[in-house]
Amino acid sequence: MITYDLNIGWQADDEASMMMQDAFEQLVYERENAIAGYYNLPKSSKPIITEAKAFAASNDAVNNSDTIVVVGIGGSSLGIKAVDSMLRHKYPAAKRLIFLENPDPVDLQMKFSMIEKERSIFIVISKSGTTVETMSIFKAVLARFEIDLNKSDKDRIIAITDEGSALCRFVDTHSLKAYTIPHNVGGRFSVLSSVGIVPLTLAGYDTCSLLEGGASMVDRFFDAKEEHMLIKAAFIASNWREYRTNVLFAYGNSLEDFTKWYVQLWGESLGKIDRCGNRVGPTPAGHIGSVDQHSFLQLLMQGPKDKSVTFLKVEDFESSLKIPDIELKHIERVDYLNGHTFNELINAECDATMEALSKEEVPVDMIKLDKIDEENIGELILYYELLTSLVGSMLHVDTYNQPGVEMGKRILAEKFKKV
Amino acid sequence: MITYDLNIGWQADDEASMMMQDAFEQLVYERENAIAGYYNLPKSSKPIITEAKAFAASNDAVNNSDTIVVVGIGGSSLGIKAVDSMLRHKYPAAKRLIFLENPDPVDLQMKFSMIEKERSIFIVISKSGTTVETMSIFKAVLARFEIDLNKSDKDRIIAITDEGSALCRFVDTHSLKAYTIPHNVGGRFSVLSSVGIVPLTLAGYDTCSLLEGGASMVDRFFDAKEEHMLIKAAFIASNWREYRTNVLFAYGNSLEDFTKWYVQLWGESLGKIDRCGNRVGPTPAGHIGSVDQHSFLQLLMQGPKDKSVTFLKVEDFESSLKIPDIELKHIERVDYLNGHTFNELINAECDATMEALSKEEVPVDMIKLDKIDEENIGELILYYELLTSLVGSMLHVDTYNQPGVEMGKRILAEKFKKV
Repeated sequence: MITYDLNIGWQADDEASMMMQDAFEQLVYERENAIAGYYNLPKSSKPIITEAKAFAASNDAVNNSDTIVVVGIGGSSLGIKAVDSMLRHKYPAAKRLIFLENPDPVDLQMKFSMIEKERSIFIVISKSGTTVETMSIFKAVLARFEIDLNKSDKDRIIAITDEGSALCRFVDTHSLKAYTIPHNVGGRFSVLSSVGIVPLTLAGYDTCSLLEGGASMVDRFFDAKEEHMLIKAAFIASNWREYRTNVLFAYGNSLEDFTKWYVQLWGESLGKIDRCGNRVGPTPAGHIGSVDQHSFLQLLMQGPKDKSVTFLKVEDFESSLKIPDIELKHIERVDYLNGHTFNELINAECDATMEALSKEEVPVDMIKLDKIDEENIGELILYYELLTSLVGSMLHVDTYNQPGVEMGKRILAEKFKKV
Repeated sequence: MITYDLNIGWQADDEASMMMQDAFEQLVYERENAIAGYYNLPKSSKPIITEAKAFAASNDAVNNSDTIVVVGIGGSSLGIKAVDSMLRHKYPAAKRLIFLENPDPVDLQMKFSMIEKERSIFIVISKSGTTVETMSIFKAVLARFEIDLNKSDKDRIIAITDEGSALCRFVDTHSLKAYTIPHNVGGRFSVLSSVGIVPLTLAGYDTCSLLEGGASMVDRFFDAKEEHMLIKAAFIASNWREYRTNVLFAYGNSLEDFTKWYVQLWGESLGKIDRCGNRVGPTPAGHIGSVDQHSFLQLLMQGPKDKSVTFLKVEDFESSLKIPDIELKHIERVDYLNGHTFNELINAECDATMEALSKEEVPVDMIKLDKIDEENIGELILYYELLTSLVGSMLHVDTYNQPGVEMGKRILAEKFKKV
């Protein structure tokens, strides 16, 4: 279960109420007209799980593997990573996931040395099929592990891509196993499509519950409107010029990759030129508590009031690890924590920080997971996707495109073609 | 060698020139009057290296260890982590460093399971000696590994703290090995004090060159003024209300922890109430290329022009890993990269992104390391520390305190005392 507390010190006026109603209707429209496909993934992805499990059962390469190598970048890796990082400690038997995403030669060589071909399958993920980093790394994988695409090695390769993409046609040429991504699902909204579901299912996670959590959020949103989301979206859309940055302050190390997923979702969806030609969009930032109380917090407390903060708290880490009842001479000042659990400590820090920021009139809200499990993660993913669509609608931008990244790609290609 | 390219589209006027001169003089004053001690660390820390090496040579626990467990948070871990992450791949024989920093029970239990007492030494780092996270985790370490402070186990424990602190007095009680931190060196400026030098030396890194790199930056700055730093600082201090966020866009996975160190240094030093009572300070953000070209870049390109971007590039990763000369049917579009190194690819992406942002008139600059080595890292650390002091001086804040984090600590203590 997830609960949502808003403490943003802001009241929606009539104008904001109209904005909320319009945005809600736009999402209904987008869903009904399949303009954005992510709304339906929690239901439409279910058959992928069945299929992936059947495929795994009949495929020796998958059966004998303990490692899944994901070759993908951005939307093709961040979501999978986020889910894997959050669940990993609960699944000691899950297959290891290794992500080859950055064309950093040192990182690639280090990760190559961790991979044993005979115990690995390789999943290459690219919507367009021509992502330069992904396809370059895929070639390096083929060379390094001497993978022969026309022989038995082909069982180790799975591709996930858009129907009709260059990668899709390549896959057909070699009769490789492939899954498609719906055309109306963008990379950053794709974690509950085959992009996330295939690797996470093959790794051994309960992806069924992940989808169910997502479905329950979608249903609740469209049935009951989830007013707290509409208010939060309206607050952000109305005030982003004042509160430029929204910090996702997540308490727990395993949540760090989720904050990166959020940064992509938010930044790439909302940082746009709006329909009036203005550059708009709030800035997302991810921080980890309590570590970053010793870093970013000073700026939040006493720096300019240009940020809102969303706390992400796990109420029950399902750990009984305690601060032992030890008295250290001269350090008695911290003995008040003796006998308490670390679970209590980290959460009390989260609460104390939220309280301290509230006193400084920083707009804050909190998302509380009763525990980390697939259902909660599924809900959390959809919560953020729906929130992003709402804010995008209110900002009058196209939430689902990313025209700003094209120029860099062109310049890159020119640099090499000139050589 | 490091080179610095400024392309911020900004000319210092007379007022800015006066500001630069004043700030430079303030740093001279701070250094001469020992107001901030970090200026001298590159020289004053040298004897620590000799001492730590002698200590290691005579201590069986250190000699027989392959793991150094650092118990510390914020300024007591971020800098050590940053250096370790950057150098790790060049030192396969270096002792492993494990950081126990966050009171996250899942993370602690996972890391505990990686530690074997007989092969480990434990370094507890806290300036005040009463950091609640650090002292609580330290107690958990004592209990979990059944460390008897009055017997031979004491050889496994090293403390690093301020002279006269509670931890210092505790250490005296048990005659444990300890190193002190100069009083005038704050946590976030302490990486070249005993805080960083002891664990990094014991791990096997060439800390001498690290200090030499730092010393050369300090000398150049105070002798030759390094005008590019003064201009960059004046630009940031004069324009932070327009360019609210400075993004450190670092190309290479091993640089991620350095960006976190930068975020702490910048956020905690500059996010302050200035001497006129105003809340001031630019917001730091760390991003990794080329991964975040598939995430944050859209916002930088088309979102509001409220950010400046500093690129951090490693010219030579000292790797010859190539994109193999393989043609994949239907994916010929990316063949222009065949035969090039990943080193070329990641750096061309860095250049292309900087060029694309420049075209959008985003203020950019670039820090180019010819390669990753201790000397460059030492210089880079001092570059950022000096830059922070300059901006702090220009913003009229006390760069070296952090009063904003106290309220949360008080609320935390109250929460437990009420229980």
